[in-house]
Amino acid sequence: MTRPLWVDEKTRTASLEIGSSMLALIRELYPIGRSITGPGLRATVARLSEIVPLQVTEVPSGTRVFDWTVPDEWSVEEAFVETAGGHRVVDFNESNLHVVGYSRPVDAEMTLAELRPHLFSLPEHPDWIPYRTSYYSPSWGFCLADRVLKSLPDGRYRAVIRSRIAPGSLTLAEYVHRGATAEEVLIFAHDCHPSLANDNLSGLSVAIHLAAFLRSRATHYTYRFVFAPATIGSLTWLAANEASLPGIRHGLVLSLLGDSGPIHYKETRAGNLPIDRAAWHVLSTEFGGSKRLDFEPWGYDERQFNSPGIDLAVGRLTRTPNGEFPEYHTSADNPNFLSADALGESWLACLKVLEALDCDSRYVNLQPKGEPQLGRRGLYRSMGGYQDVPARQLALLWMLNLSDGANSILDIASRSRLPFGLIAGAAADLQQAGLLAPAPDAGLGDR
Amino acid sequence: MTRPLWVDEKTRTASLEIGSSMLALIRELYPIGRSITGPGLRATVARLSEIVPLQVTEVPSGTRVFDWTVPDEWSVEEAFVETAGGHRVVDFNESNLHVVGYSRPVDAEMTLAELRPHLFSLPEHPDWIPYRTSYYSPSWGFCLADRVLKSLPDGRYRAVIRSRIAPGSLTLAEYVHRGATAEEVLIFAHDCHPSLANDNLSGLSVAIHLAAFLRSRATHYTYRFVFAPATIGSLTWLAANEASLPGIRHGLVLSLLGDSGPIHYKETRAGNLPIDRAAWHVLSTEFGGSKRLDFEPWGYDERQFNSPGIDLAVGRLTRTPNGEFPEYHTSADNPNFLSADALGESWLACLKVLEALDCDSRYVNLQPKGEPQLGRRGLYRSMGGYQDVPARQLALLWMLNLSDGANSILDIASRSRLPFGLIAGAAADLQQAGLLAPAPDAGLGDR
Amino acid sequence: MTRPLWVDEKTRTASLEIGSSMLALIRELYPIGRSITGPGLRATVARLSEIVPLQVTEVPSGTRVFDWTVPDEWSVEEAFVETAGGHRVVDFNESNLHVVGYSRPVDAEMTLAELRPHLFSLPEHPDWIPYRTSYYSPSWGFCLADRVLKSLPDGRYRAVIRSRIAPGSLTLAEYVHRGATAEEVLIFAHDCHPSLANDNLSGLSVAIHLAAFLRSRATHYTYRFVFAPATIGSLTWLAANEASLPGIRHGLVLSLLGDSGPIHYKETRAGNLPIDRAAWHVLSTEFGGSKRLDFEPWGYDERQFNSPGIDLAVGRLTRTPNGEFPEYHTSADNPNFLSADALGESWLACLKVLEALDCDSRYVNLQPKGEPQLGRRGLYRSMGGYQDVPARQLALLWMLNLSDGANSILDIASRSRLPFGLIAGAAADLQQAGLLAPAPDAGLGDR
Repeated sequence: MTRPLWVDEKTRTASLEIGSSMLALIRELYPIGRSITGPGLRATVARLSEIVPLQVTEVPSGTRVFDWTVPDEWSVEEAFVETAGGHRVVDFNESNLHVVGYSRPVDAEMTLAELRPHLFSLPEHPDWIPYRTSYYSPSWGFCLADRVLKSLPDGRYRAVIRSRIAPGSLTLAEYVHRGATAEEVLIFAHDCHPSLANDNLSGLSVAIHLAAFLRSRATHYTYRFVFAPATIGSLTWLAANEASLPGIRHGLVLSLLGDSGPIHYKETRAGNLPIDRAAWHVLSTEFGGSKRLDFEPWGYDERQFNSPGIDLAVGRLTRTPNGEFPEYHTSADNPNFLSADALGESWLACLKVLEALDCDSRYVNLQPKGEPQLGRRGLYRSMGGYQDVPARQLALLWMLNLSDGANSILDIASRSRLPFGLIAGAAADLQQAGLLAPAPDAGLGDR
Repeated sequence: MTRPLWVDEKTRTASLEIGSSMLALIRELYPIGRSITGPGLRATVARLSEIVPLQVTEVPSGTRVFDWTVPDEWSVEEAFVETAGGHRVVDFNESNLHVVGYSRPVDAEMTLAELRPHLFSLPEHPDWIPYRTSYYSPSWGFCLADRVLKSLPDGRYRAVIRSRIAPGSLTLAEYVHRGATAEEVLIFAHDCHPSLANDNLSGLSVAIHLAAFLRSRATHYTYRFVFAPATIGSLTWLAANEASLPGIRHGLVLSLLGDSGPIHYKETRAGNLPIDRAAWHVLSTEFGGSKRLDFEPWGYDERQFNSPGIDLAVGRLTRTPNGEFPEYHTSADNPNFLSADALGESWLACLKVLEALDCDSRYVNLQPKGEPQLGRRGLYRSMGGYQDVPARQLALLWMLNLSDGANSILDIASRSRLPFGLIAGAAADLQQAGLLAPAPDAGLGDR
Repeated sequence: MTRPLWVDEKTRTASLEIGSSMLALIRELYPIGRSITGPGLRATVARLSEIVPLQVTEVPSGTRVFDWTVPDEWSVEEAFVETAGGHRVVDFNESNLHVVGYSRPVDAEMTLAELRPHLFSLPEHPDWIPYRTSYYSPSWGFCLADRVLKSLPDGRYRAVIRSRIAPGSLTLAEYVHRGATAEEVLIFAHDCHPSLANDNLSGLSVAIHLAAFLRSRATHYTYRFVFAPATIGSLTWLAANEASLPGIRHGLVLSLLGDSGPIHYKETRAGNLPIDRAAWHVLSTEFGGSKRLDFEPWGYDERQFNSPGIDLAVGRLTRTPNGEFPEYHTSADNPNFLSADALGESWLACLKVLEALDCDSRYVNLQPKGEPQLGRRGLYRSMGGYQDVPARQLALLWMLNLSDGANSILDIASRSRLPFGLIAGAAADLQQAGLLAPAPDAGLGDR
């Protein structure tokens, strides 16, 4: 069965415009005070639902998920540090990064020396506020610019955090696009970080816009987009959906997709699965400077998906990886750090990776003895003797040469190092010309 | 069974002289107007038959060969372009490249503007005449130096091509050298190009001189040398011999063997067959600067041999590959572009690749526990303590170490990166000394 | 079953002191005139036995060992070359390298021209005495500095070698440390070279100090240390122990371990055995600049252990390989060429390679669905958001991620490129925390 390609020149052009929409969305979501539970998380999900309607599930605090427990819900009303004279030197209203995530309530006066262990800064970037959390260890603290910290005079200070930690629920959101088969592709983006743009408003934006693109389209696979907090959120989702996990054939975690770095693909634990081959083929042939990362059990939620008892075929797409750019997990990861171009390109790259899985298929060459005469079918230039051969003709020859029923379009594109779309286009032309037929089990069902 | 080596110092010396003979043959064949059918092709085959008698088969026009049909025969009596004043500005008599291959007859007066679409030149090499063909699309045209084209004044011209396209036949030629086994090695060279020296008078010359060398020699394999036009010729030969193709165990396409570039080996489609291993071992250890090319379904007739329905183990030897030197398919690919040294070296390289297949064999070490005492057998220098070990002794040690019956001489030569002949010589000495015996199934019949 | 690690900070510190002890031992052994048989060999074994008691076996001259025969015993009482005037220009008393090993007795006057074929020097290093032997070809000769050779005036000389070649025996020495299993690790060092320090007093010293370390320790494997002459000695030992060879699971040949070069590991013939993986993992992660050498049937006694009829999993550890430093097999390979630091480091490297085999084990993750919550078990820092992850935590995550029962600690250390000890430590902590359990067949018995 031929599966028409998703991406054409129109899509490429659209990606620029979609990049701008994504950056606008990021600017809108940026100020919201998200955490792994709570009102900011719900507000974020509500805004995404305006783009594509998400199904929301609230999982009560205290629910056991594998080795973990869904924590109490956290919210902050107000938080500040002020001098004895009432001057606020740190204020949650100015940046939600100022408060350590899940800080316990506090309202106390103390000396600077007593306060100091609760203050976090980045001496190597004196103007940036770091991002810190303490989800599972009762604690409180403030993050602030090192320049501010260093300027604090000795004396007494009042530290106030009016937070609430109480039973509530953790918010999961998902969107399912039904395809021809119930076999699923999972797209996951974490949504628990407060005012951090690349990590992970970029991932949320790309994911919701991929969903928007697929919505109107007939696909082979069913696509499941999951938005959840990092770690506890992906674990909660996995625990709640354990019975249906075997239906997931491929997956991607999306994050850090708006900076100016090259696109990185991080392999699955196995390293040689279809998602690995599709992602690396697309990136290496069409997105210059792309890099491939070995799997390691560190990073984002691919850690959970690739744990030995879950073992899903989930890779990860990012631009500059976590921890490899100085703005990571600081106030410098704000919307100005991102560009619409990078976001649009990331979206297009994701789309093409998914396309290379969804539109993959196997064919058999119906004229396998020697090359068929392409010239009389209008598939080959009529005059011979030239030094070169156009890429289009090479694609036809590769498709014919390797279509023995065992190789798929992706296999052939990978071996020839020609773009997936070019090979897929050649397959369509050759099928049209009666030279190729779908292989008996073209659904790749035995992969 | 021990198989004596083919190449010794005498052969190496002879290769220089044979290089000169080949260049002389190329100069003789160069002016002949060859095409994929016709009198020039027959004249070429007749000249080669003076060196080694070829069996000639004429396949009638109209014969179906797989997806193709043998075309009508083409010949040219006269062809020129002249000015209104009767001055010939292009003349087939001066170079048979001047006429596009398979040009239909024409005799017409027209303006330069009307003539222009029928004229082909190479602006980037203004003094060279390009080579163009139009075998399967009815057309006519002239190729000429860009300098001449640019100098043509406006005005009226007369274009005359007195060609004949009529039922006839396509000429195949082959020579079979019988070996101890009916298993075959196929050597193929295309013979359809007009006045082009490297492509492929060099291939014809090397092939016919390999045949001459083998003629007087007892070989293990049967060698089949096929001379045929490119594409339609190899297809015609394959279709005519389809039943006996399974007997072909290894093969080489020969072309572009006279220029000064390094020797290139292009892999089979599978890429890891004995011919691949033999060719690359010989080139990488004995022919400095050699390069290995991945298979691609583009190039010469290896395309047909490696098509999925034919699937023969055929690689290709060239010096600079097609399309990678500017003289390719132009009048600059003439005998002065070639050298006797390069031709002789190419011949020797081919011979050594075939030798590494033909003389390969497996042995078992009869003293496999530790090293046998080579010194008392005169196979090891009697004084010890030196820093180095001569290559000759290393070869003996490798042969003993890996001769467990599973590894052949080629396997051992490949692993040790020592020349095939050195390992084969060590095998002969060790057998002589009673330390090795042929492995039970030394014929490599299970490969 | 958990196997506690051998090497801790104390061991690392001790290695420096042990390096000094080894260098002192080498200085003591250096003057002894060793050969493949004879009194010097026995004196050397006796000195080593003072460190760890060795079991000594004397194998009579004439004993058949595979393709060889144990030679007669050789000893030298006196040897010199003197001028007609009685001036000794070469004297065995000054260096035992002056006499070609196994020189036959001689006492003759002759001209310099007649003497010349019996004199060996190194023109490229005019002050060094070369090392030469002629074990199996009756001969006599002297080695001397080229500067001395060149200074000899014409005239008559008297050459005297009072040597004895007569039936006796070849001396083997070994030490066995019993472990929990009868499966063995073989450590081999040759002990037949006269006054040469790196080759192989360094190997003897490291081997005997490894034995000393293991003596007081409970190990998984049984360790067999063998000290024997090169080639004939290893062959004699193999022939005498042929029946028990199948119990040897891993092995190392030790030599050239005191120079300043990087540590080299030479692979087994198979190249992918546990000893290969353990050695290369330890060297590549913990000993900067280390290099891996392909197997070749040349070098030291690994040649015999890796012969096809013996086929033991024996690799080799050296610093600069044989033949790759100019001092090799000359009088410049003396104790001043070595350093205590290099010897200590070599000892530590050997120990860690053996540790990576002995303490290897497989576990299963008892919380395999997602990551278990390490924080509440005190195994993870409580505050999140940092850019980096400490190596210690990475080791925990790798261990959990890959402990599916199939991967051992060494497998996981190799994949993560983290030190074996770090991964093993993580395994111990996780087992303690109830997150890991030994795999059912954790003994790696099926390797």
